[in-house]
Amino acid sequence: MAETAEQQTAEQRLERLRDALDSGRLVPVRRILKSLHPAEIARLLESLPHNERKVVWGVVDVDDQGEVLLHVNDEVRAALIQGMSPEDVIAAARDLDIDDLADFVDDLPETLTEQVLRSMDLANRQALEKVMSYAPDTAGGLTNTDTVTIRPDVTLDVVLRYLRLRGSMPDHTDVIYVVDRYGRFIGGLSLERLLTHDPSERVADAMDTELEPLADDLPAREVAQQFENRDLISAPVVDANRLLVGRITIDDVVDVIRDEAEHNLMSMAGLDEEEDIFAPVAASAKRRAVWLGINLLTALLAAQVVGLFESVIDQVVALAVLMPVVASMGGISGSQTLTLMIRGLALGQIGGGNTQSLLKKELAVAAINGVLWALVVAGIVLLWFRNPTLGAVIAIAMIINQLFAALSGFGIPLILRKLNIDPALAGSVVLTTITDVVGFFAFLGLGALVLL
Amino acid sequence: MAETAEQQTAEQRLERLRDALDSGRLVPVRRILKSLHPAEIARLLESLPHNERKVVWGVVDVDDQGEVLLHVNDEVRAALIQGMSPEDVIAAARDLDIDDLADFVDDLPETLTEQVLRSMDLANRQALEKVMSYAPDTAGGLTNTDTVTIRPDVTLDVVLRYLRLRGSMPDHTDVIYVVDRYGRFIGGLSLERLLTHDPSERVADAMDTELEPLADDLPAREVAQQFENRDLISAPVVDANRLLVGRITIDDVVDVIRDEAEHNLMSMAGLDEEEDIFAPVAASAKRRAVWLGINLLTALLAAQVVGLFESVIDQVVALAVLMPVVASMGGISGSQTLTLMIRGLALGQIGGGNTQSLLKKELAVAAINGVLWALVVAGIVLLWFRNPTLGAVIAIAMIINQLFAALSGFGIPLILRKLNIDPALAGSVVLTTITDVVGFFAFLGLGALVLL
Repeated sequence: MAETAEQQTAEQRLERLRDALDSGRLVPVRRILKSLHPAEIARLLESLPHNERKVVWGVVDVDDQGEVLLHVNDEVRAALIQGMSPEDVIAAARDLDIDDLADFVDDLPETLTEQVLRSMDLANRQALEKVMSYAPDTAGGLTNTDTVTIRPDVTLDVVLRYLRLRGSMPDHTDVIYVVDRYGRFIGGLSLERLLTHDPSERVADAMDTELEPLADDLPAREVAQQFENRDLISAPVVDANRLLVGRITIDDVVDVIRDEAEHNLMSMAGLDEEEDIFAPVAASAKRRAVWLGINLLTALLAAQVVGLFESVIDQVVALAVLMPVVASMGGISGSQTLTLMIRGLALGQIGGGNTQSLLKKELAVAAINGVLWALVVAGIVLLWFRNPTLGAVIAIAMIINQLFAALSGFGIPLILRKLNIDPALAGSVVLTTITDVVGFFAFLGLGALVLL
Repeated sequence: MAETAEQQTAEQRLERLRDALDSGRLVPVRRILKSLHPAEIARLLESLPHNERKVVWGVVDVDDQGEVLLHVNDEVRAALIQGMSPEDVIAAARDLDIDDLADFVDDLPETLTEQVLRSMDLANRQALEKVMSYAPDTAGGLTNTDTVTIRPDVTLDVVLRYLRLRGSMPDHTDVIYVVDRYGRFIGGLSLERLLTHDPSERVADAMDTELEPLADDLPAREVAQQFENRDLISAPVVDANRLLVGRITIDDVVDVIRDEAEHNLMSMAGLDEEEDIFAPVAASAKRRAVWLGINLLTALLAAQVVGLFESVIDQVVALAVLMPVVASMGGISGSQTLTLMIRGLALGQIGGGNTQSLLKKELAVAAINGVLWALVVAGIVLLWFRNPTLGAVIAIAMIINQLFAALSGFGIPLILRKLNIDPALAGSVVLTTITDVVGFFAFLGLGALVLL
């Protein structure tokens, strides 16, 4: 098949754009952007250094700007908006879905928010204010108010005629919602049923009453799990009185899934998933300095422990040579258990009394690997330093550290979660502190006892 | 709103199941399973230790077994299938979609595969063999052959009558595909247009000819990006001759996205995302032993470097106390750059000549933080050991190591990818080896030069 613009990989698009930029003319750049979807343009913008990003942003079609802004990460969005006139911002906001607009407006400076609100008609403004009243990471915050609703007491034929009159439906409409006269959710009529059932059938008979609406205060993560578990395309959202608020569509849920996964990956290195990879050096350095500072504190703590044993190191220098091995093996083991736990907690797989079995299993695994690698290292130390006592000391220290590592990898995320601290963010720092401190203490302490 | 079974979190379901299991009777267990979707049952099974998993699996409704098997991870699936009779396996396979069946059959022992194939009718068997001829991680491997196709020269009214005759449509049908008489893809007719356009209109006039089909050899990761970028629910898949092979639906794409994200997270700790968290201790220990063994080699390499400087440590024990600080700060910095690169590569954000700007930025950030924290540490060392030369040595070593860390975090994933090695899997091992070796070498080597 011939390769079309649609079928190019992100990298190929980036190469093409680069060639066009290098040509120094904007016509080919504009032509490439024209052939791309807003989300693809957003990805490209994120991949460009600041000066080139500015050039390309200037060429993005005005009609695409709103969608593009929606798809770039928070930091890039803020920078792009800063360079826009209020009129352009209002124009960009005009075509967005209500739930997307709510996210967009959230990031605007206050004066701009008011201008955007004033530019809207009453119905839309009220819908926006409703969505904005929810926390962004709840079902309500993901809700789009643009839905097709019908009454239960009409026939499918009436619905068919109504839709033809309407002329269009909101994107990703797979189910039409059936509400009573107060706007309370009763059930859903899938387009499939509407198309395959007899037109003389009543909506009340054709509709699916088993379709469970989502509560508007359901956390976004739970919404994502519901979509995944039930293979949903869209789901109705209701408030505490079962009044239909709107619906959530799969495209927004995919974003939630992607964001959560990126958050876990990036947090473990102390990074923010909404960071611009081409952020100014000063801003980037400042953010990372915090993480390095925290790590320095933990490293100094470990150094203090080593410092306690200066006199034994002074006499048996081999201890200094070998101590990083003990600490490092503990860190690796511990982070395996930690990662397993962080994923398990994110998926809701840990709880309900399975924690004890899991701890037992992790401790057993650590014991086996602890003994195995302790023996290997003891053998190497024996050959290297010709000192059987030193071999025994490192073996015992390693076994102790492996068990502590498993215990920490298991316990830290549970404790952090109880304290409402993100385990993905803080887990690895706390873990390596423990495996370093325990590793050094066990090895050097035993060394001091036995070798002096 | 009252909490229904649907609205429970995964953890709450686990708790409920635990209570039911503890009651010792199977009736409540069966009742809970009845109220859940197969994917939810799958998640629960994964969360149970082996003996309980066996009990619960025995109670899962036969009609749900196929879908449940599909949703558990590879290792759990293999174990469950091992305990089933061939008849049960065939029954479980019966209701699956063709693309799901292809995955399922892939994991069966060969004799069972043949039995399943023999139990199918000719048309389905041919469809299955077609899908199985594709690699699982390509568009073809994700393709479901169950599609509704129409010809361009009929009116919408004819299509409406055809659908009513058909009586149902495959799950997640949002677009009906228009093919010519040879089965070549021409365009798509969305249910929305079918419902809102005049029934006397011809399909050829109402259809969307801009709908780009996906090539059957497109990598799964690219498929996921297309779905995300274009907010798709389903997409047609064609072969090299533009013949319609089938379609890919968003539910399978969400699985791809989830798997890829989990793969990145788990790989960085040397874990496999398809691993059973309650895998037998021996199997688990064996798998992790490999990772620990690789790490031991790198730790011993670092120890060798320290060993080169035994004589200087013997005379300045403070070097032994401080050397973990230098190595650890390098490791942290490097893993930040590494994580940024691994995500960037996964998203296709790196390439097209932006690598140089990125390297410059990362080096600049490393230089700033290197100098900053080098000065802080030098100050602390001065207070602690009252030795200005030692302070200068650690400061210079830290700056050198920070720059090497940024360079490695940047270069390692690019090199690994060129070598076709997964950067997420091997990156952090290689990185910490470098930051340890460089850190120890710079610090102890400078120490030997200046302090002896």
